[in-house]
This record gives sequence, structure tokens and C-alpha cells, in this order.
Amino acid sequence: MAKTPITVAYGDGIGPEIMDATLRIIEAAGAELETDVIEIGEKVYLAGNPAGIEPRAFESLRRTKVFLKAPITTPQGGGYKSLNVTVRKTFGLYANVRPCVSYHPFVETKHPVMDVVIVRENEEDVYGGIEYRQTGQVTQCLKLISRPGTEKIVRYAFEYARHNNRKKVTCFTKDNIMKITDGLFHKVFEEIAPEYPDIENEHWIVDIGAAKLSDTPENFDVLVLPNLYGDVLSDVAAQIAGSVGLAGSANIGSSIAMFEAIHGSAPRRAGQNLANPSGLFLGAVMMLVHTGQTEVAERAHNAWLRTMEDGVHTYDIYKEGVSKEKVGTREFADAVIARLGQKPETLKAVSYRAGEESADSASSSSTKTGTDASTNKETVGVDVYLDWNSGSADELGGAISKLSGVGLRLTSISNRGVKVWPEGHTETFCSDHWRCRFVSEQAGGGGAVTHAQIAQLLARFAEAGFDFIKTENLCDFDGKPGYSHAQE
Amino acid sequence: MAKTPITVAYGDGIGPEIMDATLRIIEAAGAELETDVIEIGEKVYLAGNPAGIEPRAFESLRRTKVFLKAPITTPQGGGYKSLNVTVRKTFGLYANVRPCVSYHPFVETKHPVMDVVIVRENEEDVYGGIEYRQTGQVTQCLKLISRPGTEKIVRYAFEYARHNNRKKVTCFTKDNIMKITDGLFHKVFEEIAPEYPDIENEHWIVDIGAAKLSDTPENFDVLVLPNLYGDVLSDVAAQIAGSVGLAGSANIGSSIAMFEAIHGSAPRRAGQNLANPSGLFLGAVMMLVHTGQTEVAERAHNAWLRTMEDGVHTYDIYKEGVSKEKVGTREFADAVIARLGQKPETLKAVSYRAGEESADSASSSSTKTGTDASTNKETVGVDVYLDWNSGSADELGGAISKLSGVGLRLTSISNRGVKVWPEGHTETFCSDHWRCRFVSEQAGGGGAVTHAQIAQLLARFAEAGFDFIKTENLCDFDGKPGYSHAQE
Repeated sequence: MAKTPITVAYGDGIGPEIMDATLRIIEAAGAELETDVIEIGEKVYLAGNPAGIEPRAFESLRRTKVFLKAPITTPQGGGYKSLNVTVRKTFGLYANVRPCVSYHPFVETKHPVMDVVIVRENEEDVYGGIEYRQTGQVTQCLKLISRPGTEKIVRYAFEYARHNNRKKVTCFTKDNIMKITDGLFHKVFEEIAPEYPDIENEHWIVDIGAAKLSDTPENFDVLVLPNLYGDVLSDVAAQIAGSVGLAGSANIGSSIAMFEAIHGSAPRRAGQNLANPSGLFLGAVMMLVHTGQTEVAERAHNAWLRTMEDGVHTYDIYKEGVSKEKVGTREFADAVIARLGQKPETLKAVSYRAGEESADSASSSSTKTGTDASTNKETVGVDVYLDWNSGSADELGGAISKLSGVGLRLTSISNRGVKVWPEGHTETFCSDHWRCRFVSEQAGGGGAVTHAQIAQLLARFAEAGFDFIKTENLCDFDGKPGYSHAQE
Repeated sequence: MAKTPITVAYGDGIGPEIMDATLRIIEAAGAELETDVIEIGEKVYLAGNPAGIEPRAFESLRRTKVFLKAPITTPQGGGYKSLNVTVRKTFGLYANVRPCVSYHPFVETKHPVMDVVIVRENEEDVYGGIEYRQTGQVTQCLKLISRPGTEKIVRYAFEYARHNNRKKVTCFTKDNIMKITDGLFHKVFEEIAPEYPDIENEHWIVDIGAAKLSDTPENFDVLVLPNLYGDVLSDVAAQIAGSVGLAGSANIGSSIAMFEAIHGSAPRRAGQNLANPSGLFLGAVMMLVHTGQTEVAERAHNAWLRTMEDGVHTYDIYKEGVSKEKVGTREFADAVIARLGQKPETLKAVSYRAGEESADSASSSSTKTGTDASTNKETVGVDVYLDWNSGSADELGGAISKLSGVGLRLTSISNRGVKVWPEGHTETFCSDHWRCRFVSEQAGGGGAVTHAQIAQLLARFAEAGFDFIKTENLCDFDGKPGYSHAQE
């Protein structure tokens, strides 16, 4: 087998020790790697690079396309960027993959049967960080969900399930409320699931799903989640598994992937041969599967499970009566190496499906990115938002009605999603953030509206002295409205 | 004591039985109530009222301002509205209050020590349901967080803590990512907390907080959460407490409040004297505290706790070896009544602070709604969003640069929150949803921009044939930018 080039960063704190232990184990297991070592973390930050990664690292990553990364220490004080955010945004790492496994009875947990993998969408949702304060009272964040972004993550989750011998993929959304954004995520899930008839699929509303996951995680296998739900629930799942210190994670892009432990650099434990290398090691196992070295991954992972079961434990999980032998970082690695070829007896052995393609390359090659060719879009109106604090909804309705014209007519005003004109409820609290909905002046509305008409309408608002703060066009897609209505 | 007028709805399924049991207990405990019974639910839906509530009910609610509501059955098929959403939106019920308590060792739970109250903001966040699809690929939901909305909910949480003898209020946000919206929620929490020096306060980033809550709920007391986090985590908390069938909930508005069980109408159990009335009963206890009948609430609640501990259980929680006596709905109510005046011996007894004001009236009287008088807003630019799918970021940058003028100048283009012009990364995937940022043409930007200039800029876009889909003004508040920057 040709050696797989990978980029390796030893990081800070306990990083060098656990990286050493990790590489020793996987090489002993037969991994064929050609490592290119780069500098990241504290030294690089303090040398004046706010991203915490040396510039030549990007060349290395573009060449190897695989990054095994130890934890780093971010220096105190402002001005530093998150290394993970930089790498994620630069290379479009769209999937965060986090297995959350309990190792009962060898590691303490309230959930003895738990083996869940969270596949979190990692680029969209409210994490675009697109925010505005536009009135004295109201702030806004844009939540964006795209079809190509959703197709990529859902397809990745199913490919991951297939390559890792998983049986089921579960999707959580809140599409009973967010029918358009979360509705798109759910719809794409339903479209792609039938392409994987060997994998079971299901969908839950996120509140009920989260309750089930935190109470009976044994009922879940692979989960695919929009960014925010994935952020919260991957932390919940790792915590209740009792395995935060034992968990690895992958960040997958269409060309580059990064593998790491989910814990930090623990500077106070550094250099003492104490740290548990298991989190980074399990990240490295995911890397081996990703690069197609599935046999090596299986061999190393099963030896590690056997070591856990034999009670050979580092200080962080050592427990009198359960553990047999307290060992240091190096000795733990030796114990795993000594067990290569063995399988666990109580815990379930892992098996990884061999294949030419990793989950990721399958994903990128078959993802459709783009609109359906058939989609026909027509702009049929515009919502004009105002900063206004000078009276009642009825007074505003009266004044704005007079701006109708130029092909557009005011039909309703709402405040924080509740209709307040015409015929609002007296109890509704109105903030200074008002939405005025205009549609085509044609009888019954429904006609097309031009961009020139929208610009003219805004000129009228400006002339009348109104502080319009934002606009949102109303569009039909294939004759169906692509916008929600206010609650009446 | 003058009788408190309340509106009562017996609902569907097991509703009439559990309402009967609930009213019997609290009246025996000394509640002074004048009940006005209204019709809600299945019959009302099927009689042609899509909101599931008879029109005269609104008059009753406006008069009594207190609603004790049994569960209802929503008929199969479309066209029906959620009764709870209708009541919440009509009357501005801004707070959802849900105690999640475990009753170990009398009811099975993995979390023996758990007594958490979730106070969920109930009107804002992504639940305004303001959504748009504006390109073939991208959908958008607006997340709105307002200062008055946040002040109301945070103040309510602290008032609730004080009136219910609670020690700590915890806030969760994601303000490391959403610095403007969640940042406002966190900031208001920090502003209001010092007004309650008798109550401890703390803040966690929601992912870490959720992990702690689901693993060690014993470390939490009252939580105040934005709408989405509250939705997900109140279901998680109720589930892991093991008490979904025993939980009540309150929905609080500035003039009207609604109290209920969190479970449904369980039509298959109806009319058999089987159902557990505890959820509705605990909702009614919250109602008594809310209306100032704290002594009655305490008496009834403690007798109920004693009944639980004495092992007098309905079928749903009856367990051989733990329970002593399996009883029906009526007998359970009799058992609680027989214990009025007694306190639990193993479980912690409750105590409610007597006071003239309920948490709610205190809240509404002291809430500042409005901007700080000092806030000075200046519009300094505009983001114009395009639906465009005809080339690269550089090509778009070249074309849009030519539209600069009328006092506004293109400074950058981003796609899904990542800067792509000038000097983007080649790896960045670009959807058909582009943001073009314009600021004042003055050297260095920073100058004021007029609404007429923005309208003129859009006219130029229209003339050049670009499909602009939305705009967002860029505003400074007291000289500080009220908008985020794209990730570079």
C-alpha cells in the first residue's frame, strides 16, 4: 500500500505526549503514513500570527488533505482567532463528526448502552454570524439553510453510516415551526434517505428528539443535525456517555479533513507522562477509516477496547475496584500495542467496511449542488421593515397606506411575527421593529413586481421620512409562496 | 379573602376527570375561587372554529385573567390551529414556566436529586416564524431578540425565584457566536441580576450548560433561556426527571396567565377513573401562587408530596415494591385531601413566600420597555443581498463595483458569512446567495448614509438587471457598529 501523506501538529500542553502515543499505536497496527509536521498553537500565536497556524501549514494541508491535530493553548487576551474556525472556514469543513460511546462497566456512566455518532452540519444555520442591530430595541441574526449545504451533510451522514457498519440515521429539526428553513433540511433528508435502502431512517422534532436522546441514547445510532442543534446535542451526548476525555472528532470538507480529540491541552498535566491519549487516538482511528486504511483502524480500535476492558487505565478514568492497573501515557500506548490482534470480550468489537472510497469522496462526487432546473422564481412583493416608535399600529397603518402606489399596495403590518394591522389585538406588545408587507397592486395581488418598483417604493418611504431598516423580497417558486405569513 | 375569578376548561379525553380531581383538592385546601367554565377542544374545533376555543372565551379570559386548562384533543386533518399558540399570541404570554422535579425513590429516575424550573422566553427568537426562500438554493429564518422582550423574561425569572424561595437563576446563551442577539440577552441578564442580591446568578454557553444540565441537574435551580434553547431543554429536563406525567406548566403574560399539565388528553384512558391528575394539579398549584394564595398552594402541594411518598399511586407510576396502593383518579384526590395539613418526610417540603404581588405583576410594573434615551443611531451603510449564479466571486465583485456611487461604495462580498471578495479563498463553496456590503463613499467610510441614497443604489442594481433579494441597513449605535463582520 502506498503511504498516505498526512499533516501532523503536536500542539501544546499534553499535545506532544498524546500525539506521540497515538502515532506509535497506529504505526504498530500497520498504518502507512508519511507525516509532515507543522507548528500550531501558543508559540505561533505569540509569534504574531493571530490565527495560531504558520502560513506554510496551508500549503501542507492543501497537499496532504488530512490533518491530525493535537489540542492547543490559546494565549490569554484578545485579538486571537479560533484555529478551528479558521481552518473550518478556509477549507469548508462542512461536517463535524463526533462518536459518543459509553464503556460500561469499565468507565462510569448513567447510560450503560450508548454508541451514538453525531454528524453536525458545520457551516450554516445561525453560525454564519450575520447579525444586525437596527432599532433601539431589536437585534436580528440570520439563520441560513441551503439546499447544497444540506445535501452535503445528509449524504455524508448516510455514507458514514454505510462505511462504519451503522444501521440507522436519525434527523432532528423543528420544522413544525420553521417550515421553510428546517422544512428544507427535513425535505432533503427524506429525498436522500431512499438512496440508502440498507440504512434505516427516522425524523424527530428536535425538542422531543433531544429528550429521548438524553434519556434513552441506546435507541439512537447516527444522528444528522443542523448546526445549532448539533452543537448543543453533541455536547450533551458526549457528557452523558461519560466519555468526554475519551472522545475524538472529525471535521470533514470536500477536499480536506481534520481529526482531533474533543478535550483541551491541559497544560497542568503536561510533560508528566500522565495524560490519556485515547481522545486523539480515536480521532486517528477515524482518520484511518477516512483514508481507506480500514483494516488498520479495526485492529487498533479493537486492541484499545481490549485495553480498556483489561482495566489498564490512565489516572483520569482509573477507579479502585474497576481498574486493574494505573498507567502513564507511554505505558498505556504500550498496553494497546501489546494487544494488537486481540478483540474485546465484553465490549462490542468494531468492524469497518473496506472500500475504495471513503464516505467523504463518495459524498463530494455524487452531491448535486444547485437548484432544480425546473424551479421558476417570481418576485411578487416586498416586506419593508421600519424603525418606528411614534404611535399605534393603526396610526402606522394609516400613514404607510398612503405610500402604496408604483405597482405595490400595503396589505398588512406585523410586529415580532404577530399581525397588528389591520385588526390587531389590543393586548399585543409592539416593539419599535415593524414589518410592512406590500404586494402587487393588481386586484387580488399575485402579480409580478419589478425591482425598479421596489426601489421606487423605498424612495417614497425615504421622502416621507420613514427609517426603513431592511427589506425582504417575497418570491413564489413554481407558483408556491416562498415566505411565511404572520400569526393572526 | 375575596374569591379569585378564574376561567376553567375541562378539555377532552381524561381532561374532565383530572380537572374535577384538581379542583376538589385545591378547594378542600382552602382555595377561594369563582370559576367560569368555557368550552375548548375537539367539539369546538368540529363546530367550525379553527382555533378550538369558543369566541366568548376571550371575554372570560379578559375578565378573570387566569386560565386553568385541561388537555385537549386536536381533530385529525389540517386547517386547525394550535390553541396554545392562539392564546399565547393573542394575549402575549411571554413566559413559559416548567418545573422539572424528580421524586426519588418514589418515582423512577436516573437523577435522584433534581428540582429545576425552566423559564422559557415564549415570543421571540426563531419562533416569530418569519421565513423567506429567496434563491433557488437558500432559505432564511429571522431570529429576533429584543431588549423589552428580554427584560420581561429575565425579570420574571428573578421574581419567580424570589416568590418561590429559590436560590439561583442560571442563564444559557450562545453569545460567543451570536454576539449581538444572544449578546443582548446575556447583557440584559447581567444588568438585571444585581437588582436581586438575594439570588445567586450564573451564565453558561448553551452547549456546555446543556451538557451539565443533562448530566448533573442537581446543580441547577431556576433557568432563564431564550425561546429555542428553552424549548429543547425544557423537554430534556422533564424527561430525565422521569416526571413528564407529573409536570405542570404556566404561561405568563403581562395581564393573563394560563396553567396546565404538560401531557396530552390520552383519549384511550378517558372515563375509566384511571388518569393521574398530578400534572394539572401541579399547574393549579402554580396558579394559586400566581394569584397570591400561597398558603393554600403550600398546603395542597405538601399533601400531594406526602401522598406520593406514602406510595398511593395511580397506574402510570405504580411500581411493585415501591408503591403501596394502586388507586384511581378519584381515590388519588381523596388521598391527597386526607393528607392536607401534613408534610412529606423524605421529600423536601415546599414553601411559598406570601406577598401582595405575584411575580408577574411585579414584573410588568417595573419593566422598562424602550430604548435607553441616550442611544444615538446613525445609518452608515447597507448590505444588498443578491440571487446570482452566473460566475465567480471575482466576476461579481467587478460587476458590482461599477454600481458604487450615489454616496455608497462596495467594500466586500460574502457568501454564507464567509468573505469571498476581495481576496477570498479558492476552497470556499459559493451558494447563489451573495451579500454585497456598501458604506459611505467618504474616505475611510464611517459617514452617514441617507435612505434616499439607499433607494438610489437599489435603482442602480435594478437598472443593471441584478436580482436583489433583500437589504439590511448598517447602523452605528452611540458610535459603535451594530453589525457583524464576515469571517475572512
